[in-house]
Parts: sequence; C-alpha cells; structure tokens
Amino acid sequence: MKLDSAGLEILTREECLKLLASTPIGRIVFTDRALPAVQPVNFCLHEGLIVIRTTATSRLAMAARNTIVAFEGDHFDIETRTGWSVTAVGHARGVTDPEELERLSKLPLIPWAPGVREHYIVISPEQVSGRRLVR
Amino acid sequence: MKLDSAGLEILTREECLKLLASTPIGRIVFTDRALPAVQPVNFCLHEGLIVIRTTATSRLAMAARNTIVAFEGDHFDIETRTGWSVTAVGHARGVTDPEELERLSKLPLIPWAPGVREHYIVISPEQVSGRRLVR
Repeated sequence: MKLDSAGLEILTREECLKLLASTPIGRIVFTDRALPAVQPVNFCLHEGLIVIRTTATSRLAMAARNTIVAFEGDHFDIETRTGWSVTAVGHARGVTDPEELERLSKLPLIPWAPGVREHYIVISPEQVSGRRLVR
Repeated sequence: MKLDSAGLEILTREECLKLLASTPIGRIVFTDRALPAVQPVNFCLHEGLIVIRTTATSRLAMAARNTIVAFEGDHFDIETRTGWSVTAVGHARGVTDPEELERLSKLPLIPWAPGVREHYIVISPEQVSGRRLVR
C-alpha cells in the first residue's frame, strides 16, 4: 500500500476506474464565466470514456465544449470516517457525430433529472488519480 | 416550489446553507497549475464561513490562497434517484491572524485524514446556489 504525504492510500489508475464505475453519480468541474463551477451528474463509463447526458442548451453543455474539465467521484462512510475519491482530468467534448450518437443512445444511461436530454458530453480521462482513506 | 429550466427545484440561500450544514463532507474546486482541480474535505460552517483544516504545505493550501473557489456539498439517494446539491462560490484565504486561529482551533473540526493539520482555510460563500431533485 503506497501512501501520499497526507497519509492517504494512493490508488492505481485501474483501481480508480473500477471505483468510478461503481458509482452512478459524479461531479463535473469546469469554468463558467471565468469562475470555478461544479455540477453533479449521473454518468456511465463506456469504452474508457466518461459519458454524460444533458440538454444541448444547458450551462454544462455550453461550458464543457472542447475544453479541459475535471470529473470527480467519491464515496465516504460518515460512521467510520473512511472512503475514497477519484478525479479524472481530460478533454470534454459534445458529441456531434451521428454514428457515435447512435451508439451512445443505446447505453443504459437514463438521466436522473427530468426533461429531454439528448445531448451527450464525453470526457477522456487523461490524468486519473485517486486516494483511499482507511483506518 | 420554483423550478429551473431543467425541472430541478431551486433552493433559497437559507435552504442551501442549512443543507450544507447537514453534511460533514464537501468538495473544494480550485485551479491547480492552470487545470481544474477538486478535492473532498471535511469541513464545518462557522459564523457564515466554510472552514477547512489542512496542512500548510498541502496542494490545497497552496492553491486556495487568496483566490476564488467553489465549494460543493450534495446528497443523493441511488434507490429513489433523488437528492440535492449546493454550491458556494467565494474567496478562499489561509488564516494567519493568531486570534482567528485560536478561535478556529476550538471548533469541533477534526480532520478525517491522518497527520498534523493546523492550517485553516476559510471560504466566504458569496454566491450560493442549490438544486433539489424530487420525484
């Protein structure tokens, strides 16, 4: 077990992606009008990409268009004060290719929020890092 | 109940701060070497400020020094697909005033992560927004 300077266990990329796949909710971190912004989203991992479904006119769709974002997932247990967090940093893009859209529309990715959400954002997790807090 | 264009309930500032106070874990969103960064932290609300305890040499302490950050807290129920999220945007500063440090050291804020953490970061929640997802 490899620890960082803060005493947290450093997770491998493989462990990070496995943990990220275990949670349906993550948080996309982006810049909105020069200010830091963060928004929880439900997502799925597909062929190594983080896939999010939203509306084409959402603040998220506008901001996460061909830019670098961070994506975070975590799980903490309040009783035991243990948990993990994983952050992926990479390029986000809105999907416009009809064939790719067709493939993504078959994913088991049902938006939690109401309304029609036929815009897909994909993030390639270029830098992946994670930590686990154990007792 | 006021809904946004995505069909989510818009929370008042008062509701947001009450919900934020109900969770011990939040995520601080900042910029680290020109890239978006996010880190879960345990925190407490004190006199209207978000208070975080860390080490003086941490990446977070370095990055969240007199800058604007976002701070997010949320809670989601995977079964019912409901939940809430709150984001506060505001100035973050490292605390250096001895009297303020003395006051903050008396807070019931025990770091979850191991090690000596005697550096305090405070965020003033200048812009507070929140959404609730109901069925």
